[in-house]
Amino acid sequence: MTTRSYAQLRCPIAQALSLVGDQWTLLIVRDLLSRPRRFEELREALGISRNLLTQRLRQLESEGLLERRPIEGSRRFVYAATEKCMDLRMAVLALAEWGERWRPDPEGPRLTVTDRKDGAAVGVRFCRLDDGAAVPSEEVKVRRAKAGAVTA
Amino acid sequence: MTTRSYAQLRCPIAQALSLVGDQWTLLIVRDLLSRPRRFEELREALGISRNLLTQRLRQLESEGLLERRPIEGSRRFVYAATEKCMDLRMAVLALAEWGERWRPDPEGPRLTVTDRKDGAAVGVRFCRLDDGAAVPSEEVKVRRAKAGAVTA
Repeated sequence: MTTRSYAQLRCPIAQALSLVGDQWTLLIVRDLLSRPRRFEELREALGISRNLLTQRLRQLESEGLLERRPIEGSRRFVYAATEKCMDLRMAVLALAEWGERWRPDPEGPRLTVTDRKDGAAVGVRFCRLDDGAAVPSEEVKVRRAKAGAVTA
Repeated sequence: MTTRSYAQLRCPIAQALSLVGDQWTLLIVRDLLSRPRRFEELREALGISRNLLTQRLRQLESEGLLERRPIEGSRRFVYAATEKCMDLRMAVLALAEWGERWRPDPEGPRLTVTDRKDGAAVGVRFCRLDDGAAVPSEEVKVRRAKAGAVTA
């Protein structure tokens, strides 16, 4: 896999991409950010082959980005985001904002990002770390415009 | 190219990845964020083949992310980031922060992000858009720990 060679570069961006720079990987992460998912749910949302999805999920699991959780009363399980995976929320939503700006949908915004407490618009921005102005991730609500399309 | 199929999904993240989700593309963007670059500079920084780099640069140019600028007094040119490309700075630095946290370097942080006016630490965070707390991108300074490694 080409991304492996990223890992040689002494750069945190390259290091991040060596884990999540694969085709489809960030879209799987996107789907897991909102809630745990079953295999078939992921496959249908992405429209990729079972083999490809299996391979990506194994890789994500081995890198500590997801964990399999048994479904009570069933032999099946769901894939759940770990803290390491949840911490990609900012990067994923920064990409989403860019996508909204530069590849807008004719039907309007595909997702809205707001402050849970009062519904004010929230964006991914540069923030001083000493002024307490940043909104904690758990207070940020992401809503997709239509079911099945966006889930971060 | 697999990323093409992303473009079918009604999701701004998928749309963004259909433009910059290719192997190496975000690392080329990273290098262009700090200043225009010559072909050989990019090739040496990334250690990829001329063919692969040529193909990625053409794609970025056709998508309006970079432009070729002639070097005065020379027949050669540099590749420069357009506004559309510069607007990826937030997403690239969000990935960098994640890389620093989850793939730290034993020698310490590989880059520092600060407010130009007083050197205070800056991070990519969720920010309310109504409180004016966000630091404009042009006031954010990114320094790499060592030459040749990080440039955003």
